[in-house]
Amino acid sequence: MPRIITLTTDFGISSPYVAMIKGVILSINPQARLVDLTHAIGPQNVRQAALVLADATHWFPPETIHLAVVDPGVGTGRKIVYARIGQHDFIAPDNGLLSRLALATPPSTIITVADPRFWLPAVSATFHGRDIMAPVAARLSLGLEPQRLGPVQHELVQLQWTEARVSERRIQGSVLSVDAFGNLITNIPADALVNVPRGEKVTIVCDEHETHGIFSTYADQPAMTLIALIGSSGNLELAIVGDSATIMLGVNVGAPVTVAW
Amino acid sequence: MPRIITLTTDFGISSPYVAMIKGVILSINPQARLVDLTHAIGPQNVRQAALVLADATHWFPPETIHLAVVDPGVGTGRKIVYARIGQHDFIAPDNGLLSRLALATPPSTIITVADPRFWLPAVSATFHGRDIMAPVAARLSLGLEPQRLGPVQHELVQLQWTEARVSERRIQGSVLSVDAFGNLITNIPADALVNVPRGEKVTIVCDEHETHGIFSTYADQPAMTLIALIGSSGNLELAIVGDSATIMLGVNVGAPVTVAW
Amino acid sequence: MPRIITLTTDFGISSPYVAMIKGVILSINPQARLVDLTHAIGPQNVRQAALVLADATHWFPPETIHLAVVDPGVGTGRKIVYARIGQHDFIAPDNGLLSRLALATPPSTIITVADPRFWLPAVSATFHGRDIMAPVAARLSLGLEPQRLGPVQHELVQLQWTEARVSERRIQGSVLSVDAFGNLITNIPADALVNVPRGEKVTIVCDEHETHGIFSTYADQPAMTLIALIGSSGNLELAIVGDSATIMLGVNVGAPVTVAW
Repeated sequence: MPRIITLTTDFGISSPYVAMIKGVILSINPQARLVDLTHAIGPQNVRQAALVLADATHWFPPETIHLAVVDPGVGTGRKIVYARIGQHDFIAPDNGLLSRLALATPPSTIITVADPRFWLPAVSATFHGRDIMAPVAARLSLGLEPQRLGPVQHELVQLQWTEARVSERRIQGSVLSVDAFGNLITNIPADALVNVPRGEKVTIVCDEHETHGIFSTYADQPAMTLIALIGSSGNLELAIVGDSATIMLGVNVGAPVTVAW
Repeated sequence: MPRIITLTTDFGISSPYVAMIKGVILSINPQARLVDLTHAIGPQNVRQAALVLADATHWFPPETIHLAVVDPGVGTGRKIVYARIGQHDFIAPDNGLLSRLALATPPSTIITVADPRFWLPAVSATFHGRDIMAPVAARLSLGLEPQRLGPVQHELVQLQWTEARVSERRIQGSVLSVDAFGNLITNIPADALVNVPRGEKVTIVCDEHETHGIFSTYADQPAMTLIALIGSSGNLELAIVGDSATIMLGVNVGAPVTVAW
Repeated sequence: MPRIITLTTDFGISSPYVAMIKGVILSINPQARLVDLTHAIGPQNVRQAALVLADATHWFPPETIHLAVVDPGVGTGRKIVYARIGQHDFIAPDNGLLSRLALATPPSTIITVADPRFWLPAVSATFHGRDIMAPVAARLSLGLEPQRLGPVQHELVQLQWTEARVSERRIQGSVLSVDAFGNLITNIPADALVNVPRGEKVTIVCDEHETHGIFSTYADQPAMTLIALIGSSGNLELAIVGDSATIMLGVNVGAPVTVAW
């Protein structure tokens, strides 16, 4: 069975850069099965990509290879890494891209990608995604042992991921990401809410906007109502029924969210 | 030959939700051949998705499985359905998404997706596309009999699709959709125009904008001219040569279109 | 090994037109391996597509088929062509789409696509991409001899591609394209810069904006600095570190760029 390689980049949908990466991979392994994860990460937004990787990659079958290229430090001293996380293989710049994944599942192996034998013969200073990472991912998909890519490394570069603070009758968190519907996804996991009473007794405040109760679905309340619910990724989410919460409330990533009861 | 599964959603191009669906399908059937139909349906715009499905799916080979997830009522009483339409299999929420297709070709089988044995073990309240529809589509691609999904159902939920009214020297219709070029696609089929004289004698009015004659191609008139022609989907279309009719005329879906002679 | 067919269009990401083309190809050759190059070419922007094809297609393996549909003259006298360029096959309208590729590598064979036996039975006047080009590409992927498509043709339609002018201590070029990061890619190739001194002594002026030195990577200077460097496609590029040069400078395709020392 040819292996699956997923692609996550900030290259946008109109540039030829994604196609170059696909061409390089298919030139080395014409049977590789490419799946676009997303190419619409905000330019150089490592945190956004780290969240998308943490949310989406574990849904793929074991032995999937995930190639992620959001690389503002390309051509500098930042390393490129191979990491084994769970039963998946990752290739990415070591700039925090894999740090959200590693928070949940510490990597069992981390290798610095260092041996140029597995890269393209000519490596540009500005596009290591194409010249180093794509050929390495393609060779892994053909069965190359990760250990041959370079020396073992003991840690990944970490980003700061603020966790929600849970106290007796209060949880303080923040908006972690905004989805295509304009829903505000918080850093408050469902686990933190198991002891929270259901119904009107719980108050959720996001910036200066307030709502009561935690619901099951978007359709539980009338259109244009602000509601709180457990979203698809298992975290508390704030939504405007039938509209965009980020636009209607003027709220974005980083805004404070408080649950009190 | 592994079966093709097309994907149509309103998830946008930057969210991880599309990737989650792909991951679930490939985890169940690693050989499934995924084809993105589009993920840029307007948020919760069931009518737009219904039109895209009706226009595009019949071009695929027989036995293609089409998975469509535009699902504002997720988690409520709305059903999820399997439908056999022509030689194709469809999985979608029963909210009108398949109603435009069913108008042209009544489904030969409709089944309510009801048996949780074919779903993911844990089903969220907000993402049945991933937790119910994707695994069901994947299992159909492996040969599961649709009859095992649940009980037979006799009708699909319908949306209102206004047809053009044809009278002796006049056809009254409206703009059905707008394509990426800004062309206005109407609900007036070519069939309705067979008795219409060609050339200057026919007048087409869209909102307050008027043009004369029905042309064959966009290039038949000078740049910036408003022209009427039979478009790629077989309906009357209004276009501004070399520019966007929706932007230049300020006309959008629903605007009245009259053909008179 | 099923052949790869890449797709490049200006159809946008929300229209059903791309899916129709995929459906037609897969109906003729269900094993064809489709790779989206991009569908976000600006509407009818033949020059932009010609640049993307020239930059991206050569990264794919030999015997890849590239189908490109940016076709403002559809339904007029413009021809549709097959061209063999290097070890790749191309199908496109003969409107200059392949002219940037042909500048670097003259086609070894050009055939006018003329024999309707290889097209869909019904050909619309407005969508030859679906009705003529897609079935022809699919049949080539099944082994059809290109010579059977129609008569040999001796030249492709050319577009004007202005080359940079190199004089003793000065190179005059212009901005050729803008990527998703807002970087300005010029028509000045790295070759033209080999005799240019490195460091402060060289001055690059783009519109009225001036910078000094040619750097290796984006990260060589502080954030918000305008820098010049050799980009991923091998041409001189102007970038604002950590931001968008096209937005910050108000500079777009066609702007003059001068290198002087």
